[in-house]
Amino acid sequence: MAKKSVLQQKRAAYQPKLPAALWGPVKAVKGEPTQSVGDQEEIKNLFPNTYGLPQLTFEKATEPAPCVDAFNVGVILSGGQAPGGHNVISGLFDGIKAINKDCRLYGFLMGPGGLVDHQYMELTADIINDYRNTGGFDIIGSGRTKLEKPEQFERGLEIINKLNIRAIVIIGGDDSNTNAAVLAEYYKAKNVPVQVIGCPKTIDGDLKNGLIETSFGFDTATKVYSEVIGNIERDCNSAKKYWHFIKLMGRSASHIALECALQTQPNCCIISEEVEAKNMTLNDIVDSLAKVVAARAAQGNNFGTVLIPEGLIEFIPAMKALIAELNDMLAANPQFASLSAAEQREFVLSHLSAANAEAYASLPEGVARQLSLDRDPHGNVQVSLIETEKLLSEMVGKRLAQMKKEGTYVGKFAALHHFFGYEGRCADPSNFDADYCYGLGYNAAQLINCGATGYMSSIRNLTKPSAQWVAGGIPITMMMNMEHRNGKNKPVIKKALVDLEGKPFKAFAAMRDEWALNTCYTYPGPIQYFGPEEVCDQPSRTLYYEQN
Amino acid sequence: MAKKSVLQQKRAAYQPKLPAALWGPVKAVKGEPTQSVGDQEEIKNLFPNTYGLPQLTFEKATEPAPCVDAFNVGVILSGGQAPGGHNVISGLFDGIKAINKDCRLYGFLMGPGGLVDHQYMELTADIINDYRNTGGFDIIGSGRTKLEKPEQFERGLEIINKLNIRAIVIIGGDDSNTNAAVLAEYYKAKNVPVQVIGCPKTIDGDLKNGLIETSFGFDTATKVYSEVIGNIERDCNSAKKYWHFIKLMGRSASHIALECALQTQPNCCIISEEVEAKNMTLNDIVDSLAKVVAARAAQGNNFGTVLIPEGLIEFIPAMKALIAELNDMLAANPQFASLSAAEQREFVLSHLSAANAEAYASLPEGVARQLSLDRDPHGNVQVSLIETEKLLSEMVGKRLAQMKKEGTYVGKFAALHHFFGYEGRCADPSNFDADYCYGLGYNAAQLINCGATGYMSSIRNLTKPSAQWVAGGIPITMMMNMEHRNGKNKPVIKKALVDLEGKPFKAFAAMRDEWALNTCYTYPGPIQYFGPEEVCDQPSRTLYYEQN
Repeated sequence: MAKKSVLQQKRAAYQPKLPAALWGPVKAVKGEPTQSVGDQEEIKNLFPNTYGLPQLTFEKATEPAPCVDAFNVGVILSGGQAPGGHNVISGLFDGIKAINKDCRLYGFLMGPGGLVDHQYMELTADIINDYRNTGGFDIIGSGRTKLEKPEQFERGLEIINKLNIRAIVIIGGDDSNTNAAVLAEYYKAKNVPVQVIGCPKTIDGDLKNGLIETSFGFDTATKVYSEVIGNIERDCNSAKKYWHFIKLMGRSASHIALECALQTQPNCCIISEEVEAKNMTLNDIVDSLAKVVAARAAQGNNFGTVLIPEGLIEFIPAMKALIAELNDMLAANPQFASLSAAEQREFVLSHLSAANAEAYASLPEGVARQLSLDRDPHGNVQVSLIETEKLLSEMVGKRLAQMKKEGTYVGKFAALHHFFGYEGRCADPSNFDADYCYGLGYNAAQLINCGATGYMSSIRNLTKPSAQWVAGGIPITMMMNMEHRNGKNKPVIKKALVDLEGKPFKAFAAMRDEWALNTCYTYPGPIQYFGPEEVCDQPSRTLYYEQN
Repeated sequence: MAKKSVLQQKRAAYQPKLPAALWGPVKAVKGEPTQSVGDQEEIKNLFPNTYGLPQLTFEKATEPAPCVDAFNVGVILSGGQAPGGHNVISGLFDGIKAINKDCRLYGFLMGPGGLVDHQYMELTADIINDYRNTGGFDIIGSGRTKLEKPEQFERGLEIINKLNIRAIVIIGGDDSNTNAAVLAEYYKAKNVPVQVIGCPKTIDGDLKNGLIETSFGFDTATKVYSEVIGNIERDCNSAKKYWHFIKLMGRSASHIALECALQTQPNCCIISEEVEAKNMTLNDIVDSLAKVVAARAAQGNNFGTVLIPEGLIEFIPAMKALIAELNDMLAANPQFASLSAAEQREFVLSHLSAANAEAYASLPEGVARQLSLDRDPHGNVQVSLIETEKLLSEMVGKRLAQMKKEGTYVGKFAALHHFFGYEGRCADPSNFDADYCYGLGYNAAQLINCGATGYMSSIRNLTKPSAQWVAGGIPITMMMNMEHRNGKNKPVIKKALVDLEGKPFKAFAAMRDEWALNTCYTYPGPIQYFGPEEVCDQPSRTLYYEQN
C-alpha cells in the first residue's frame, strides 16, 4: 500500500493564505471594456460574444453574501504537471462550498479527454483532504488532448448537462487557456448557460503578461532545480575537477534557466532569446563557453557549472534554418532512409544550401546523424531529443584541445552532464505556490458565482504579503493575438519569452561576467515548509526583479 | 561575489545536538583488548604497535576536567564528498577549544595530498563559523591521493613537526581509514608522538560493521535522492505514460538503492548483491523487469519506476566473467584498436569462450562496443561509464516487443532515464548528519585528549534521541581483515555490502511484490530543518530496520 510520508502527513494541515479580499463575501468591481493585445479586429470577429469584457476585481463586500442556489462545477487538469494543481482544486472546492455547502465538484479524468469521453469522478471532501498541499496531478490525472473542435464541445455538453454542471474550470498553459476561451465563446454563442474559467499553469513560466504575473508551478519547480544545482555547484567547488553541463526543462522560453541562474550564480547560463537576438551560431556559443573555461583554468580553476535551456537549439538562427531545410529535403526524398550512414551524410551535405551544409558539417557526427534520422510523426526533427548538454561539452572539449595547441589554453577539461525536468514538476508546492494556487481556485469559484465566462482566474501583487494580493478575473481574449501555427493563422495567447530589456535578464547580465571568472555560487538548499518566513515565503527572483 | 542563501544564513545558527556523555568533562572507560574481524595473526603482525587496543567509551566525568596544555590538530578530508564533513570539522574545533581555548586546528588542502605537499591553512573561528551546518568539502577541499607510502608519511611528519601538531584527523571512507591505521602504526613504531584518528565518511553506506552503525552523509544523500525519486514517481503516477529508469550512485554496494526504495516504494529496485547471490544473468534481470511491465500493463498501467544501483554490472556473474576475459584478450591483442567496428565485433566474438561470446552477443550493440572500446589507463573496462539505466530499458523494450508478438504483452512502453549522485553528495546535512558529524568531530577531540591513536571516532545507538547516543573510539585494526587487492594481499577494513539476511533487505523483499504490481509510491519530500521533530530528526530506514 502507498504510505504517506511523515512530511506529507504534517504538511496536509497547512492552511494556505488567501488574499484579504477573499476572506469573506466579495463584490465584483468591473473595469472598462478591454481589447486584445494585438489584431483587435480579427480577435473581435472570432470572439463576438466574449470579446471586450471588462476586467473584474474582487473587493470585500460590505454586506453579507446573498443566498445562492447550489451549483455543480467540473474541473480539468490539462498538459504537463506543475506543483500546486491539487491546491487549485482544493481552493475551488472550498470556494464553492463557502458559497453553498451543497455545491458539488466533478473532476474529469486524464485531461480534457475526460470531458469528451465522459470519464469523471466526484471530488468529495475526503478525496480533497487527501491531496491538500501535495504535488502532482494524480488526483484526477492530466492529458494533452486539445479541446478545439465543435464535436468535442458537443460531446462535452452531453456530460455537462447530465451532471448539471454550471461551469468548467480548465487548469492549463497558454494553449489550454486559448482553448478555454474558444469553448467559452462556443457555448455563449449557442446560448448554453455553461461558464468556462481558465487557470494559468506551467512550470515553464511562459504564460505571463501585464495581467498574469506568473504561472503557478514555476516557483516550486525552479526551487527544486536550484536546490540540486546548488548541491552540484558545492560538489564542483569541493572536488574542483569537473565542469557540470546542466540542461533544464522549460520548452522554448529560458525563464527556468534564468531563474535558476539568479538563484545559484553559476559560471555560465545560456539564454536562448539572447542567442537569437544576437544571431549567434552554435560555434559562437561554444567559443564563449571555451573562453570562460580557459580564463578559469588560467587561475587554476578547472571546474565550473553551465546552465542550458532545453529549447536552445531552435533559437540558434543557423540551426533553425538548417532544421527547416532538412525537414523539407528529407520529406522530398523518401529513398534517404535506405541509404547507409556514410551515404546519408554525403547526401545531406550535397543537397543542402551552402550555408546550411557548413552548419551541418560543423556538428559532431552523432548529433548531425540524429538531426537527419529521428523524426516525429509529422516528419520533423525531434529537437527535444538532442542532448544539448553533451553536444556543447563535446564541442567545447574540441575547441579547448585546439586552443591548447595554439597555446591559449592550459588546463584539464572533464565534463559531467545532467538534465532536470521531471524532478521538479510534481514536487510538493512551496508556500508561495500553495497559497497562489489555492487562491486561484478559490477565486475561480467567485468568478463562477458572479457569472463570468471566458475569464482567467487572476491573483496579482504577488511579491507583497498574501493578504495584500489582488484577486479578480481577466478576459482571456484580452491576452490574445493572431499567430501563424501549423500553417494556419490562429487566435492564441501570446507566449512570453525572456524579455532582454526586462529587469530579471538585466540583473543577470550585470553580474554574469563576475560569476564566469570567479566562483560565486549560491546554495539555496531545499524548499522549507516550517521555518522562518524569510526562508519559506519568498517568491521567485524573477518576480522579485520584475516588481522591484 | 558568492551570496549566502537565506536558508544558509538561518541554518548557520543551528546548534547540533551532542550525546549527553560529551556535554561536559569526560572519562574514558576502557574495554577488553580487541582483535580483528579476520586474519588475526596477519593483522597483528602488520600492526604490532596498534593491534589489540581496547575499545573506548566516554562517560560523564564526576570531577572537573584537569587543566591540559594547548595542542594543535591537523584535519584532512579524503575522497568523495559527503554531507556533514564541515560539521565534523566544526565539532573537532569546538571540542579542542573546550579542552583548551589555545588549541589550534590546521586544515590540509585538497585531501591527503595537502599533508604530503605541505598545503594547509589554519582554521580560525571566523572560518569555522562560515561553514557550520553546510554541505560540501569546500572549506579545505578534498582529494583522492592515497596515503600509503613511508616517503609520504615522512614528508607529512616534516609539516606536522613544523606546526607542532599532536594529532591528525582523517575524514574518509574504508580505504582512507585503513590508511589512517597504517599511518598510526608507522608513527607509533617510530615512536613519534603523533596520534591518528579516523572518521567514518561515505554516502555509499558501505563503511559499517558491528561497531560503526553508519557512515556519515548516507542519511542526507539518500534523503535528497528520495526527494527527487518521489517527485518523479508522482509525475509518473500523474502522466501515467512513462517508465522511469533511475540509476543511483553508491559504487559496489546497493545500500543507497535499497534505502531509497524503502523511502519511496518504487515498482522495482535491483539489488546487486542479490543478483550475484542468485547467479542472475543480464537476461534474467531484463526478464524480471519485463514481467513487471507486462503485469502492470495488463491492468492498464503503462508506467512505473525502477531503481538501479550504480555497481550492478560488476555483480552479474556472467558480465564479470565476460569483462575479465575481454580485459585479458584485448591486452594481448594490441592490433585490435586498428580494426573497423564490424571487424572488432567479429574478432571479439570469435576469440571469446563460448559462454562469454554468448553473453557478448546478447548485449545491445552500443553497449557491447563500449565494453570493447573505452578502457581506463590500466586497460580495464570502465564499467562506471556504462549507462546501465539505458542498457536495461533498451533490453526491456526489445523483450516486450517480442512478448507482444507472442501475445503475452499488450501495452505501450516509453522510458525516461535519470542518474543521481552529484545531486546529493554536497547537500546541506540533515539534522541527523549535522548532529552525528558534529558529535564525531567533538568526540575525536576527546580521543586525542586521552592519547588514543589508530582509533576511529564512534557514535552509536543512533536510532535513539541524540542525548542517548554512545560516544567512544574503536581500534581501526579491529575492523580489518586481509583481502586480495590489485594483485596483493592487503590489510583492509572489510567493506559492507547489502546483507541479504539483514532486516532492511528482508523488509524490502517482503513488500516488493506488492510494490511491483500496485502503485504504492511514497513521496518523502525535501529535507526539513525547522519543522516538527518527526519530520526533521528521522534516521535512515536502513538504520531503523537494523535496530528495530
